[in-house]
Amino acid sequence: MHAYRSHTCGDLTAAHAGETVRLSGWVHRVRDHGGVLFVDLRDHYGMTQVLADSDSPAFAAMDRLRAETVIRIDGRVKLRDASLVNPKLPTGAIEVYATDLEVLGPADELPLPVFGDQEYPEETRLAYRFLDLRRESLHNNIMLRSKVIRSIRNRMWDGGFTEFQTPIITASSPEGARDFLVPSRLHPGKFYALPQAPQQFKQLIMVAGFDRYFQIAPCFRDEDPRADRSPTDFYQLDLEMSFVDQEDVFAAIQPVIQGLFEEFGGGRPVDPNWPRIPYAESLLKYGSDKPDLRNPIEMQVVSDHFRGSGFGIFAKLLEQEGTEIRAIPAPTGGSRKFADRMNAFAQREGLPGMGYIFWRKAEDGSTEAAGPIAKALGPEKTEAIRAQLGLGEGDAVFFLGGRPEQFEAVAGRARNEIGRELGLTQENQFKFAWIVDFPMYEKTDDGKIDFSHNPFSMPQGGLDALNGDPLQVKGYQYDLACNGYELISGAIRNHKPEIMFKAFELAGYPASEVEKRFGGMVKAFRYGAPPHGGCAAGIDRIVMLLADEANIRQVIMFPMNQRAEDLMMGAPSEPTNEQLRELRLRVLPKE
Amino acid sequence: MHAYRSHTCGDLTAAHAGETVRLSGWVHRVRDHGGVLFVDLRDHYGMTQVLADSDSPAFAAMDRLRAETVIRIDGRVKLRDASLVNPKLPTGAIEVYATDLEVLGPADELPLPVFGDQEYPEETRLAYRFLDLRRESLHNNIMLRSKVIRSIRNRMWDGGFTEFQTPIITASSPEGARDFLVPSRLHPGKFYALPQAPQQFKQLIMVAGFDRYFQIAPCFRDEDPRADRSPTDFYQLDLEMSFVDQEDVFAAIQPVIQGLFEEFGGGRPVDPNWPRIPYAESLLKYGSDKPDLRNPIEMQVVSDHFRGSGFGIFAKLLEQEGTEIRAIPAPTGGSRKFADRMNAFAQREGLPGMGYIFWRKAEDGSTEAAGPIAKALGPEKTEAIRAQLGLGEGDAVFFLGGRPEQFEAVAGRARNEIGRELGLTQENQFKFAWIVDFPMYEKTDDGKIDFSHNPFSMPQGGLDALNGDPLQVKGYQYDLACNGYELISGAIRNHKPEIMFKAFELAGYPASEVEKRFGGMVKAFRYGAPPHGGCAAGIDRIVMLLADEANIRQVIMFPMNQRAEDLMMGAPSEPTNEQLRELRLRVLPKE
Repeated sequence: MHAYRSHTCGDLTAAHAGETVRLSGWVHRVRDHGGVLFVDLRDHYGMTQVLADSDSPAFAAMDRLRAETVIRIDGRVKLRDASLVNPKLPTGAIEVYATDLEVLGPADELPLPVFGDQEYPEETRLAYRFLDLRRESLHNNIMLRSKVIRSIRNRMWDGGFTEFQTPIITASSPEGARDFLVPSRLHPGKFYALPQAPQQFKQLIMVAGFDRYFQIAPCFRDEDPRADRSPTDFYQLDLEMSFVDQEDVFAAIQPVIQGLFEEFGGGRPVDPNWPRIPYAESLLKYGSDKPDLRNPIEMQVVSDHFRGSGFGIFAKLLEQEGTEIRAIPAPTGGSRKFADRMNAFAQREGLPGMGYIFWRKAEDGSTEAAGPIAKALGPEKTEAIRAQLGLGEGDAVFFLGGRPEQFEAVAGRARNEIGRELGLTQENQFKFAWIVDFPMYEKTDDGKIDFSHNPFSMPQGGLDALNGDPLQVKGYQYDLACNGYELISGAIRNHKPEIMFKAFELAGYPASEVEKRFGGMVKAFRYGAPPHGGCAAGIDRIVMLLADEANIRQVIMFPMNQRAEDLMMGAPSEPTNEQLRELRLRVLPKE
Repeated sequence: MHAYRSHTCGDLTAAHAGETVRLSGWVHRVRDHGGVLFVDLRDHYGMTQVLADSDSPAFAAMDRLRAETVIRIDGRVKLRDASLVNPKLPTGAIEVYATDLEVLGPADELPLPVFGDQEYPEETRLAYRFLDLRRESLHNNIMLRSKVIRSIRNRMWDGGFTEFQTPIITASSPEGARDFLVPSRLHPGKFYALPQAPQQFKQLIMVAGFDRYFQIAPCFRDEDPRADRSPTDFYQLDLEMSFVDQEDVFAAIQPVIQGLFEEFGGGRPVDPNWPRIPYAESLLKYGSDKPDLRNPIEMQVVSDHFRGSGFGIFAKLLEQEGTEIRAIPAPTGGSRKFADRMNAFAQREGLPGMGYIFWRKAEDGSTEAAGPIAKALGPEKTEAIRAQLGLGEGDAVFFLGGRPEQFEAVAGRARNEIGRELGLTQENQFKFAWIVDFPMYEKTDDGKIDFSHNPFSMPQGGLDALNGDPLQVKGYQYDLACNGYELISGAIRNHKPEIMFKAFELAGYPASEVEKRFGGMVKAFRYGAPPHGGCAAGIDRIVMLLADEANIRQVIMFPMNQRAEDLMMGAPSEPTNEQLRELRLRVLPKE
């Protein structure tokens, strides 16, 4: 017989009754039922009930077992009494009567129990990650993550993509975050950088003539701590295609993502309709460039009804250039109580409040508009607003006014809140949308023009467009939104050096700077570059959505804590003097 | 019609004759056949012949094309004249008569041609890697590598393994090489390390209760330049299993590797018999712990025949303790000429020469032994040697003597040379062997005891064995040799803290040092560790064998040069002062 097991702890069924078996696993739990000891023996595959009575040669050893000890037992498979069969457990029809027991790996007193659902502080869980990972839900999440990545790979291969690994120890590739640097020992004083993304490499792969690339790519960004983000590294599905336009990229990736969510979404419906929503429209309707379309509410501009109206605050506001009034319809939200709740929400968000109208049944049976704004506006304008928004009795509308860029984010959150509060948002489903036509440039706080997103995107209209107002230039750049999260970001790339130099010039980067920062890629574009584009999808986020987890550390095997420390392995740590000398580095004292 | 292509350059066959098509790709070559221009248009999928005569609207544009320009052409598919059909090309039955041509990506004068097989200096090839990668053989190698990795993954999943990613920014995990360090910005003065291998993490994964792990894992070692090794990073198939002994690991990995070599070996036979050869026996028979078994030669100890014999040099040598005489049989090598050639080989290797006997037909038709050693030994001992080695007329034997550790490596190389020179080594096949029973310890030059290989291996005989002579202790440690290369290295791990501390103590490491270096793993072993083991296979080496390449840079998309520089991207490079300040580092001037 094998030294450790004839079967796994998930194998045995009624069909094995009478067999002599050998099992190994962890002692999940020991129970003493009046002279009979029961051990739930656990391994990766399942759980098997093992028992010993006082006649068993294994009894004494079993009596001394601590939870999480690793043991090997020999025994006979017995059918459970009909009343004791556990149909929820694959091995629930049997139990194993132990005749021999060997401790393979003893366990000290546990700092963190594996059995049970008791909450423990995250720092303890991270320091003893190997125990936390034995718990069922985390174990399942990690298995899910692995299966998701496998499924992505197979779907990408099936779509004609080939996976290539790009360098990890490489040159700085600025993507808007900080690089992690790696000092070179062979070239002291010089540093490598870990890639923030394989952006330049994947574009070089296209220039090298490989047609469809993908990679489950590790990306490294030296980020300041943020709850929903790994402070050091993350994985993305990175892909790039040659000789494509935007719709080709969408056609390639949609079946991958949709299939994935259908496979692993636990039966939650996956809407196959992925609308294309221009960036500007998305901000207007949803107050966000990653709208949650499970929420049916769409905002509308209602400025005209307020211009010169009796509602002085908005009427006055609208006299300033660049302002508007936006309405958030709230079907079924037509009560003072709800209006007050939303007003309180707005105040928590730092606004003075949120104006509203709601419609209720009047004493005479007709529909009447209520609230101070309705009163100030008068019935005609109030009715026009109601008609524009298609609302009726029992509904409400909330208003935000000012410069859109100043209230849009709050409006978006109010929309989420209203959808959730009123039960309008159908939680248990996945709804996607491509957000397209991102502006290439934005005005920074100090009035300069800078890239608003990816500087490598092809401007719509090419070189000509760059000769007009930069703020009007849109890029072939797109995001995929899902349930309020950005899952994918991508673009058709700018593969023409002259357009690239012009695009950077507009953002204030002289040609010399472009050559210095992106020299390898720019050089490559001079020797026959194909039109190409692609995107990158966040693996951690996808798994979080599928596993329904809000904490990124619940979907990573060995995560850092938020201070970018590995509490189990003790990283980062002090280098040795020898290491520093070889790198010709000195650590400066704290200022 | 699609903006860039209705078909790829590998699609069109006689069945498309008469169709109007659109193709995009690189101008591989332009030929002018007296007023008719031919362009070989190349993309990832193939090559298509495009032509234009002087009547074609595309003629003028085509006449200006430089090699490697990216173009889009529209045209009509025409059958080639029967005499011009190229059966070697999938598109060889047709050509496309161009009616329109657009330059999508112009090309400057090339520093490195893509067409043709001309050799170029490696530094140029690396600086223009995107051009070099367009060449057929390198393109094919990179595609092969990707397919090999995909096949490995599928085979591992089919074998019940699950892939998990382990951290890349982590703690130092000493594996005998230098770490790459990554300074921490959030914790100035502290450093992360890039993993030399996921050794500790994969063992932690086992302790965490995942049963069978694998990973195509990037590994980082700050190596001094060596021709056949990447100076910064490499990939390995890393795997680990719980509740297994050595033979379980072999049984899990053999079908993966064998299947892989059958799938991608280009029809070269893959011997399914993988013998287990103890380390000591491998050194004796093959002079190496990674023997090339395609070579049938096995060395033997022949000391007894020389002890006290008339061949004084060896007789005298054998009086010293620890010496022996080893014979390398050379079937069919029985000529003075061959013996002289091998003697010259030995001198190139730094030996005074290599003694030999060869057997030839005497003038009287009998077999006679020739050479000075035969003479000095006399016929009886010479015949005994011949009989022991099973040699005969037309064969030879070479001798090396002294302390085995001093001549074994040369003996191994002589065996290779003899096998190759005499055509005994059957080149076009793959032969594997598991080398087992590695010694746990060795004596260092200064007489101390140190680990000879992996300190994490379980010693055979457990704790008891460690109480005897350390140099006699063997580990459950194994390598897979293939055609003279080490493909895999692995071990059953030491999962018991008390044995681990004892094993390190013997090598001179106090418990405090073990806790400091491997604290995370040692801590984990105290909370229920399963017996476990695994191995790691070098991906680069596997692909090199399959692609029949001797240079590692031929199987990596974007390799460093031997000085660990990326000539295309310009890495490593000077950091900015801002970066150094954030990391609180100063670069010291050269001494």
